[in-house]
Order: sequence, then C-alpha cells, then structure tokens
Amino acid sequence: MLAAVFDGELRLRRRPVPVPPPGWALVRVDLAGVCRTDLEILKGYMGFQGIPGHEFVGTIVVCEEAGRIGQRVVGEINAACGECDWCARNLGRHCPNRTVLGIVGLDGCFAEYCTLPVRNLVPVPAAIPNDRAVFVEPLSAACEILEQVPVSVENRIVVLGDGRLGILCAWVLATVCPNLLLVGRHEDKLAKAQWRGLRTCLGPVPDSAHGADIVVEATGRPEGLGQATACCRPRGTIVLKSTIVAENGFNLSPVVVAEQTIVGSRCGQFGDGLALLERYPDLPLEQLVSGRLPLKELAEALALAESGALKVLVEPGMVG
Amino acid sequence: MLAAVFDGELRLRRRPVPVPPPGWALVRVDLAGVCRTDLEILKGYMGFQGIPGHEFVGTIVVCEEAGRIGQRVVGEINAACGECDWCARNLGRHCPNRTVLGIVGLDGCFAEYCTLPVRNLVPVPAAIPNDRAVFVEPLSAACEILEQVPVSVENRIVVLGDGRLGILCAWVLATVCPNLLLVGRHEDKLAKAQWRGLRTCLGPVPDSAHGADIVVEATGRPEGLGQATACCRPRGTIVLKSTIVAENGFNLSPVVVAEQTIVGSRCGQFGDGLALLERYPDLPLEQLVSGRLPLKELAEALALAESGALKVLVEPGMVG
Repeated sequence: MLAAVFDGELRLRRRPVPVPPPGWALVRVDLAGVCRTDLEILKGYMGFQGIPGHEFVGTIVVCEEAGRIGQRVVGEINAACGECDWCARNLGRHCPNRTVLGIVGLDGCFAEYCTLPVRNLVPVPAAIPNDRAVFVEPLSAACEILEQVPVSVENRIVVLGDGRLGILCAWVLATVCPNLLLVGRHEDKLAKAQWRGLRTCLGPVPDSAHGADIVVEATGRPEGLGQATACCRPRGTIVLKSTIVAENGFNLSPVVVAEQTIVGSRCGQFGDGLALLERYPDLPLEQLVSGRLPLKELAEALALAESGALKVLVEPGMVG
Repeated sequence: MLAAVFDGELRLRRRPVPVPPPGWALVRVDLAGVCRTDLEILKGYMGFQGIPGHEFVGTIVVCEEAGRIGQRVVGEINAACGECDWCARNLGRHCPNRTVLGIVGLDGCFAEYCTLPVRNLVPVPAAIPNDRAVFVEPLSAACEILEQVPVSVENRIVVLGDGRLGILCAWVLATVCPNLLLVGRHEDKLAKAQWRGLRTCLGPVPDSAHGADIVVEATGRPEGLGQATACCRPRGTIVLKSTIVAENGFNLSPVVVAEQTIVGSRCGQFGDGLALLERYPDLPLEQLVSGRLPLKELAEALALAESGALKVLVEPGMVG
C-alpha cells in the first residue's frame, strides 16, 4: 500500500498492508484529515516515528466479526489495553498501556489502510457523509469539554483561537450556552465560524468580555494561557485545549490570586461527536474545508495546513 | 507609633496612629508573622507601597461596638466592599473593590497598630495562645484547599515543598486523608513537619508516589509546577499554592494530554483555621517558629525569613 512514513523526514513509501492482530480490524482509509498535532509530530512532538495521521473515516475490510466487514466507521484513536483500571472506568483514552493512532507507537491513517481494535471502530450512520464524518474526532474532542466542566445556559464563555479546534469548541459550547464569544485573529476564519448567530470578534479580547466564567484556550500560541487567565473571572475555569509551551516566564500569580481552575482537555468519546452531527445537520463543517488532496500529495496538504488552512482533507483513493 | 514603611526601600518610621473610618476598628498588633509574600512585596510584588505585613493577632482598642473593645482577634486580610455580588456570596476575598492588608492599598501589621473592617476581626478563643493564633491566616489558606477540591480518605496526596505553607497544607490535608507524602529539600524542615505519623521524603518525588490523585504545589520555585504535573495521575488535580513565575518554556502538553486540573488556591476563611486550632491542640505549630524579634529589628526578622527560616514572629511590644 501507499503510506506516508516519518522517520525524522516524511516520505511516501510502499509498505505491506498491515495484518490486524486478534481483536483488531483492517480499515481502508476513505478520507483523512490533517490536524495541528500532525504538524507538531513532524517537528518531533511525542518522538513519533512511523505513519502519522489520526483523523479518518474508512471501511472495515478485515475483521473477525464478519458482520462488520464493509461497515463505514470512524475510529477512536486510543488503542487501550482493556484490562487496567482506566479501561474499566471507560477511560481507555488515559490507559497507561495505550498506543495512539499516528501519535504514540501505532501507525496512523496517512496510508491506504490502517488497523485499530475492533471495539474502537464506531459505525457512521448513513445520513452522515464522509466529508462530515471525518470531523468526528476533533468534534468529539470539543465535546470533551462538556464532560469535564459543568456548563450552564447562564454562563459567559469566551473561546480564544479561530483555528479549526477553536471554531469546533465554540460551536459545541454554543449548543449549550448562548452567551459565547469567539475571539480570533483572522477575519476570514471568523467569517467561516458563523453559525446560528455565533458572536465573533477580531482580537484582542474586548473589555466587555472580561470576567468570563469559562475561557477556552485554543490559540495554539504560547501567549494564549496568559490571555485566557486575564479575561477569566475569579474562581472561573480555563479549558486548555492547545498542547503548547507557555510563553517564557509565564506568571502564575494571577491564577493563584484569582483562584482560577485550569483544565487540560484532550480526546472525547466518538459517540458524542456523532450524536452532535446527527442533531445538527446544519453545522457548517463544509465551510471549514480549505483543500482536498490525494495521499500522494500529502506534502502539499501538510504545507497548506501549516500555512493556516482551517481543514485539509487527504483522500487515499483519489486519482491525483 | 512605630511602623515599617516600604516605598521601594523598607524603613522604620514614626507614623501617627491611624484613625479607623466608620465600620472599621483600630487594632493593637500583639504578634505578627513574616510570610513569603512579605518578602516578595519587598521585591516589588503587587507594586505595594506602605506598611507591609498581614499575619497578626491583636487587641481591638477603638471600635464603634463598645463590647468588642479589648477583644483579642485575628483579622481576615481582604477588606471587601460588602456590596458586590462576590461579597453577597461570602467571597469577599475575591471582591474586585477590595484592599488587602499589607498587600493591596491598605497599611499592614508591621506596626504597633493597624485598622481593618470590624467584620473582618474574628475573636480568638481563650484556649488558643497568641503564638498559635498568629498562624490562623496561613492555616486558613491551607484549609482553603478543602473548600475548593473534593478530598476523600481514599485519595493519594503529594505535597511538594517543605516551607511553612507546604507543611501547613500537609497537616491540614492529613486530617482528612491518611495517604499523604510531604516532599521537601531540607531534612531539618521535614523533621519539624512530623505530626501523627506524617510521611515525609527528601526530594525528588519517589517513583512510588507518582500517579497521585492530588498534588499540592507549595515549593515557591519555578520548576514546582512541572514536578507537580509529572507526579499527578491523568485527570488528577494540582493545587497551586505558590505565587510563582513558571520556569522558562513550561510545557503545558502533559497537562492537556493527561487532562489534569490545576486549581489556584489562596486565602481561606478564618473560621476554618481557628476550628482546626481548637480541634488539634497537639498541632506542633511551635516547632515551626525559628525566631521572634521586636518590630524595631524587622530588617533582621526579614533576613532570617529570607534565609529559609520556617516562621519568624515579630512582636511590636517586645523590648528589644
């Protein structure tokens, strides 16, 4: 199969189609998405080597459960052991023995095929086309906020960052709380975030938005945490979505003085993302797609994503 | 009166005895404590100018409520407006209009007298001597953790930092949770932290203590937060007690990946600190006292505290 392999440098190579171990399935990748984490991995994040890529929608082609062959699926990226305390609590995404698709010790989806445990593969309802299903992973990550932080209709929320994750977080939280402001640095991206009257604002955060109950930090920039603490109220909550290095000499005193809470937030449950897609067929995911390229042009796709495109899709089956 | 006045430099001066405004009382300072925050203030923290000092036990000498004159009291340091939403919720310590004794816009207790709102002054039960009552402010700050974070008897807790605040946090949490380890860098201070079988350990954090449910960061050092996140379990809680600047290039990725929660924690309610003193008369606060000096030797007291002494007391009435 054709696969993108990273060993310090990213190269397209021919690789044998992987053989799924017992309990695992082989999945044909129909459509993949480029995530900021992929770009970080190519800079050395997590020390990953192998095939990157972790957002996909695909079709099961080899599986012990014959009835699932041919099923269109998305895949939870954390391949957990299934036996530890974390797994027992349905928190396999924190299993200490896990591998993570295209991120930790497991080849990812920038290839024609990938493998995952069968229990990770979630069927996609027929009403959801591939172009929307490919957003389930980041949408679920946005939904994770609702699992971790109590959000009520009375809250005042600020989302910092008009990248893809920031926009998805704003959309998800706006389904629960109307008083939400998305603050970004790009007029074109903020325009694409428009949905059901969502309020957006070109940064910096206006004074009127200070004192927010909840601030989501999704800027992906070192200064993001400082901006988030500055516009959060005392005893408020800052949700940290960016895997970033804080700006040099980040001063934690305001967090202590205002007794703020900072909550790190990562992957969510795919059921939540799929449910959201079913409930909101007007969620304008399509307008986030900035490009669609065949796998053999992955380098161009990554460059497009690196240049600030909201969402770049990669289609292994596309004839380039 | 004799007072220590900071205006970029700390000098002992003669000042008029302050006149309390309506609703406030004049308090004779019988005994004061030196806190790390005082040392920070003398380096420019909060841009404070005036009389520093915020830990004290004293006697009310002027008060509209005649029945309170002569009362021995400790004083909540946040002088709140009493009229805003925060005050209505009994969270005057986050009142945006507050001044703070010896820290923000209000002369403190490194003087023969200070003033505070009458409602801030909490009577000290006769059974609690001054040498113990002077610890109510930092003890209440330690108790604040129990107000902010659910702590159960099953938790595994690590407290980082064998300074005064770290030790008090360890003692307070140990009253609720037996599985607690205090990690420090000084054998002599850890020895003074002994109380009811408290487990202590000379750093670094041993592998056996990794995966803690709750980690209290009270090192006062830039690298403290990184150490805390490293020994906290996924979805665990880090209580941030130090008002510090994080080490350069602090990497927040582990907080996001492990979905940890960081809770800034500051002042507590004096009732909690006093209740603890009454409930645990064997709490060995006396062994934390490293020095006791008259006010006119405040410079020496501060130097002693700066050199790492656990607790230095200042006695305005002492004949030096």
